[in-house]
Amino acid sequence: MQDHITPRRVVILGGGFAGLFAARALRRSPVAVTVVDRRAHHLFQPLLYQCASGILSEGQIAQPLRTVLRRHHSVSCLLAEATDVDAGARLVHLRRPDGSATELPYDDLIVGVGMRQSYFGHDEFAAHAPGMKTLTDALDIRRRIYQAFEMAETATTALERQQWLTFALVGGGPTGVELAGQIREIAGHTLDREFRTIDSAQARVLLFEGSDDVLGAFGRPLAHRAARTLRSLGVELHLDATVTDIDALGLSVRDKDGTTTRFEARTVLWTAGVEAPPIAAAVARATGAAQDRAGRIAVEPDLTIPGHPEIRVTGDVMSLNRLPGLAEVAIQSGAYAGRAVRHSVEGRTKQPKPFTYLDLGSAAYISRGRAVVKVGPLHLSGVFGWLAWLFIHLAFLTGFRSRLGAVLSWSVAFATSSRRERAFTMSDADAPAGRAPGQKASSPPH
Amino acid sequence: MQDHITPRRVVILGGGFAGLFAARALRRSPVAVTVVDRRAHHLFQPLLYQCASGILSEGQIAQPLRTVLRRHHSVSCLLAEATDVDAGARLVHLRRPDGSATELPYDDLIVGVGMRQSYFGHDEFAAHAPGMKTLTDALDIRRRIYQAFEMAETATTALERQQWLTFALVGGGPTGVELAGQIREIAGHTLDREFRTIDSAQARVLLFEGSDDVLGAFGRPLAHRAARTLRSLGVELHLDATVTDIDALGLSVRDKDGTTTRFEARTVLWTAGVEAPPIAAAVARATGAAQDRAGRIAVEPDLTIPGHPEIRVTGDVMSLNRLPGLAEVAIQSGAYAGRAVRHSVEGRTKQPKPFTYLDLGSAAYISRGRAVVKVGPLHLSGVFGWLAWLFIHLAFLTGFRSRLGAVLSWSVAFATSSRRERAFTMSDADAPAGRAPGQKASSPPH
Repeated sequence: MQDHITPRRVVILGGGFAGLFAARALRRSPVAVTVVDRRAHHLFQPLLYQCASGILSEGQIAQPLRTVLRRHHSVSCLLAEATDVDAGARLVHLRRPDGSATELPYDDLIVGVGMRQSYFGHDEFAAHAPGMKTLTDALDIRRRIYQAFEMAETATTALERQQWLTFALVGGGPTGVELAGQIREIAGHTLDREFRTIDSAQARVLLFEGSDDVLGAFGRPLAHRAARTLRSLGVELHLDATVTDIDALGLSVRDKDGTTTRFEARTVLWTAGVEAPPIAAAVARATGAAQDRAGRIAVEPDLTIPGHPEIRVTGDVMSLNRLPGLAEVAIQSGAYAGRAVRHSVEGRTKQPKPFTYLDLGSAAYISRGRAVVKVGPLHLSGVFGWLAWLFIHLAFLTGFRSRLGAVLSWSVAFATSSRRERAFTMSDADAPAGRAPGQKASSPPH
Repeated sequence: MQDHITPRRVVILGGGFAGLFAARALRRSPVAVTVVDRRAHHLFQPLLYQCASGILSEGQIAQPLRTVLRRHHSVSCLLAEATDVDAGARLVHLRRPDGSATELPYDDLIVGVGMRQSYFGHDEFAAHAPGMKTLTDALDIRRRIYQAFEMAETATTALERQQWLTFALVGGGPTGVELAGQIREIAGHTLDREFRTIDSAQARVLLFEGSDDVLGAFGRPLAHRAARTLRSLGVELHLDATVTDIDALGLSVRDKDGTTTRFEARTVLWTAGVEAPPIAAAVARATGAAQDRAGRIAVEPDLTIPGHPEIRVTGDVMSLNRLPGLAEVAIQSGAYAGRAVRHSVEGRTKQPKPFTYLDLGSAAYISRGRAVVKVGPLHLSGVFGWLAWLFIHLAFLTGFRSRLGAVLSWSVAFATSSRRERAFTMSDADAPAGRAPGQKASSPPH
């Protein structure tokens, strides 16, 4: 029985694309929506690599969730991490940023917590090869890329110089391909004439991919065109390659013949895999839901968890028909879940249609003026792919101001090869001794 | 005897205003200039508070030193920290970002290492009250300000909520005044209608100043006008106030009658004093130069160290005629030192004129449309002060693109009260376990 005084409480875990579109679908419903996220911002993840490479600032790809949802008066935001779910009592357990615990009751729960970087059981790789999922990751990678050239400039041996001028990327999906293209562009154009000792254009970029194609999800023709474009940019592609070890100075890679080769590279970036965050396992435990190998939660065709019609799972962390972890899937599944709750609030009794994903296409940017885009039967690459990429990203960038700022930053970056956001922070040796290490806001140099 | 093959080696310590203008003055001389800095960027320090408050991005106030100096082929940049000077052997000892040591010989040394935050012997305050000297500081303060409102929104007691909604600033110089104005603007305008539980406009901003005036350097009339403006914005001014203790929940302050009062405030920011970095003491030790109480190095009227005509000290770390630590003093003294080396290279034997500081005026921004500006006998405040402030900062912002970007960001910020760069990073709980704490690029929540 729904009390008419207390509105139905909808808790949305995660303020990514899925959570945001679920909240929007409920904006005119007489419900109380709470969006819970460990971060205060909604991140436009598809452009994260441009923040890492110094084209865009944090504010251009991350907007405060509160600002995005400000006009939806039924929606509130809560900065906290979901640690557990009590499916019987319908409670989410939360940890606030100061470590204190609190809980939040729900009538409907929409889970859209996303996925985090996975090292396939080799978590020790993380110290040497950061992932690319968060703003913190992007700023860390920005520092590593630009600092590597600085270190090369002052290297005392030829070997050290070569190690600093070699960048290894593990994973040939869109993020790996985009970062590879960016680093070659930085080396060949952005840093042009800035160094006196090294020739930044000589920097090697190695891309390691476990399967036999980069951008495999785009289909063979586009994958081959992407590989050709990458090679023409000077990226060294290593396909069918399994990374077996990573340390501060390089990595070991096994090829398909079983031969292991060592590559010297002081900068290794990891974009190879994803796994569900711990809260996904907690949801599965609380509800008896199945998880796939990466920890995604199996759902019914209407995105609910079997036996729990009040819990829906959306976005990357949802396991349904092997749908890929794309922004577009998150948007559509989040909106679907929000609409389903709205229909239920409105008292519609008709069985909802199962969720179907409408593939609007995928796009990956490779370098200035070059992208691959797949829209249904349409395959675009080169300049046409790039124009399509530009159009798609402008259409989806949340908020007019971000859009305008991004267009300006892109215009400058494309026209002049320069990058406005190259500033990076390092360990703050300047701070007085009283400053505890935990207070430092930047990481020590490697 | 100067060898005609090897050009004279000029080493500049510090890539701030002083170092940059020293390098520029030498750009057409047949010398080999090396600018050494612990950071890869030149920071436009006067606008650092706007990065902290979310108006400007890092890239808008910090440009890579290499980019700024790219066209000066005789100038190279080196990312390293100067740890010691051997004045006899004319060597600077350096530590590279990876901790390795190296050294750099010089024929002329120009010291422009600036000043760092001082806690007047209370370094333990630093953990609770960050300073405002570096980009890292600014991003830390940005996180603290915006996160405080988030914490207030979910506070479980009225006391906790009030503590999070109280901001204390220690130090009534330009930085303290500017930050106080910014926080009141954020509370009253930027965050308008974003929170559901708290009223952000209720946030208290306390400003503690040890002397009997804020902005004392601007003279009594402007100081009083600034105080009036601050009070009208809702800033609570505490003059003749000495901070005796700071912890995570607040601070204790002694007034001029000797009475100590406790203020509850979870966010305390420190802008009260400066001290010379350790390398200044090393220079003094190596040369026998005197240091003032804050560690500034005493120089001759031509900025050289007594007995060491090959070493010049410029900018904030220079002690001469009690000149203030202003960007304009750094620019003029840096340019003077660079010119002096140039004249010496050119073989001019005439005794150089002593350095004289031409006071072009000072400016402090208080809030939207309000600033105080002193240019010679001209005292401006309110809108006229603000227009003068705008003109001065546009004129001095290095590089055309930064200028254009800043104007756009300011236009948006002034017209809509919104701030584009509000994104902040927190401890990355999402990272797999293998990620060492040292690898995290953000600090844990307090």
